[in-house]
Amino acid sequence: SDSYSLLILPGDGIGPEVMAEVVKVIDWFQANRGMSFKVSHDLVGGSAYDKHGTPLADETMAKAQAVDAVLLGAVGGPKYDDLDFSVKPERGLLRLRKEMDLYANLRPAQCFDALADFSSLKREVVAGLDILIVRELTSGVYFGEPRGIHEDNNNPDNEGGRVGINTQRYTSGEIRRVARSAFELARKRQNKVCSMEKANVMESGILWREEVQWVHDNEYPDVELTHMYADNGAMQLVRKPQQFDVIVTDNLFGDILSDAAAMLTGSLGMLPSASLGAPMANGRPKALYEPVHGSAPDIAGQGKANPIACILSFAMALRYSFNEGQAAGDLEAAVEKVLADGVRTADLMGPEGGTPVSTSDMGDRIVAAL
Amino acid sequence: SDSYSLLILPGDGIGPEVMAEVVKVIDWFQANRGMSFKVSHDLVGGSAYDKHGTPLADETMAKAQAVDAVLLGAVGGPKYDDLDFSVKPERGLLRLRKEMDLYANLRPAQCFDALADFSSLKREVVAGLDILIVRELTSGVYFGEPRGIHEDNNNPDNEGGRVGINTQRYTSGEIRRVARSAFELARKRQNKVCSMEKANVMESGILWREEVQWVHDNEYPDVELTHMYADNGAMQLVRKPQQFDVIVTDNLFGDILSDAAAMLTGSLGMLPSASLGAPMANGRPKALYEPVHGSAPDIAGQGKANPIACILSFAMALRYSFNEGQAAGDLEAAVEKVLADGVRTADLMGPEGGTPVSTSDMGDRIVAAL
Ligand SMILES: CC(C)[C@H](C(=O)O)[C@@H](O)C(=O)O
Ligand SMILES: CC(C)[C@H](C(=O)O)[C@@H](O)C(=O)O
Repeated sequence: SDSYSLLILPGDGIGPEVMAEVVKVIDWFQANRGMSFKVSHDLVGGSAYDKHGTPLADETMAKAQAVDAVLLGAVGGPKYDDLDFSVKPERGLLRLRKEMDLYANLRPAQCFDALADFSSLKREVVAGLDILIVRELTSGVYFGEPRGIHEDNNNPDNEGGRVGINTQRYTSGEIRRVARSAFELARKRQNKVCSMEKANVMESGILWREEVQWVHDNEYPDVELTHMYADNGAMQLVRKPQQFDVIVTDNLFGDILSDAAAMLTGSLGMLPSASLGAPMANGRPKALYEPVHGSAPDIAGQGKANPIACILSFAMALRYSFNEGQAAGDLEAAVEKVLADGVRTADLMGPEGGTPVSTSDMGDRIVAAL
Repeated sequence: SDSYSLLILPGDGIGPEVMAEVVKVIDWFQANRGMSFKVSHDLVGGSAYDKHGTPLADETMAKAQAVDAVLLGAVGGPKYDDLDFSVKPERGLLRLRKEMDLYANLRPAQCFDALADFSSLKREVVAGLDILIVRELTSGVYFGEPRGIHEDNNNPDNEGGRVGINTQRYTSGEIRRVARSAFELARKRQNKVCSMEKANVMESGILWREEVQWVHDNEYPDVELTHMYADNGAMQLVRKPQQFDVIVTDNLFGDILSDAAAMLTGSLGMLPSASLGAPMANGRPKALYEPVHGSAPDIAGQGKANPIACILSFAMALRYSFNEGQAAGDLEAAVEKVLADGVRTADLMGPEGGTPVSTSDMGDRIVAAL
């Protein structure tokens, strides 16, 4: 069978710990399912800065471009808070997204039955929740020019004398391609897409709405499409999240709304993400997989981290990069089984108790359940 | 005593209905508290467009500039959905905010005890909730130039051939003045401010963070100040909203986050807002008061709307424009009493039942409770 090449970038904080558990899972699939992975490791974020003075070395970038899929842990930490903007850990991640042109960021917000009581929302509001947010990831205000801070000394009204600028810029082509991703994904789900912007205030939002509608009318008339202002979207996510199937939105709104949606589930330690680009020569999309949670420096190195989000990110890799839907499903089922058995890392330990386990134990249990 | 001048702009949808109840309250304060209001009425939004072809006529703008306070109902409706951007109902509201220079938008998210079960969040997460979001309202991406949609025909990579642009632009002076508003308000509350931006991605966010910190260090060192990325802010609002006292943030983040915060309370029909600018010659700030809810065209004209948000907006006017804190408190207490008595408009009717009342009945009950 095929050999799959993977670049593992554990990053900072709990990144290396959770990634070690993913490696166990990869090994299991190699040993038991006849899959063959060619795995290399490298640095990103603060750990890359410590070694190379940059959060992503050029050679690492080149490796990322060459593999089938990148698996990333998490980046950042207080140690790097005072670094210059240009070398902050986040820039490593943003460079990967931009240069690999990973325009479609898939963020499922799924509520696991065994964990529904962790949500700050009422059980009946979130039980069975299964939303997929498709966030545009390579454009918008994250990357638009001009940008920066400059002096504004000739303006006596401007106490402080500075101006900060960022540019929200979208081309119709950028909008259409991520819209297509959303419609394709919806067809395999509940066939519903809700597009969010602020077309009542921003012209870039008008363009967004018109182009999403164009793709719908010309290519996906069978999918149900609605539009919602992003502020109302934030409200509706809190009020009645189950009204949504797929949400498609821009980079900045997607950042905020997907985090709000993630928190609805109450268990951030469970949520994976995939960032996908155009197909490569071998037909596989450019791809990076990472957990939604951050580097959690406060618990790093203590065996407390929950590796499930990172493991489920690998399940997404199996599904979206390697077309191994069956294997992905088996891995997800193994996670559900372990949860149903009451196995709990610290973040998942609720009033009903359960079997407390370390990061590494959790990985072992999931492998055993496979 | 003083005479207070008010311009009432009921607007569209349920705006006129809820404003009619505010007028009853104003009349009560005139009759019973020796206050004197000079009230004029005019059009804004779709209703202004219908009459004048613009969502805010120049004479209306001039009147708004001349009064002590503007009370606004709500704008918009499906009838106006296809209007050109430049004459949409929202432009009337945005013009008022911009030309009156109402830079500090105060959006309390308060959970009323009698209504805590309306929240989609668990009672213990929201009971007693009392957050104040201070949103910058006259700058940022809402107003920055350049903006617009243009052709991009020489770019073969851009399928669709258009580009949409908006500009996020903040001066240090704009940030400092709204930060001062937030710190002043915090001193009268729990003395805590959390500032939100995306300084990890946007230079305008770096400027925001630095200037808020500057105002703190130089002028309000006694207030506790923290900073949070806006995506984490959205998460924390869902996870544990009671950790916040005052939140200060920019125009766009404020739009999204204040709506999410509003929905935490579960009763949008209860939430007022104030938009304040610099002091006028008489010492009162330029001011506009409006409910957080929209024009709700689906229930307009049926006597179903809840007038409380609009009435509590008038309470904010009493407090912030007229320094009538006692009267404001009395009005708020009257609202709480009526709620505690089980009086409910349709939107507030829960499983435990209550006395169903119309918009107009609710106004009468509140006046009676005064
Ligand atoms: C770390 C940061 C740059 C990043 C973002 O803002 O996109 C993160 O919040 C995310 O959502 O992946
Ligand atoms: C109506 C609209 C222009 C407005 C905004 O985006 O500011 C509204 O959502 C608000 O928050 O007051």
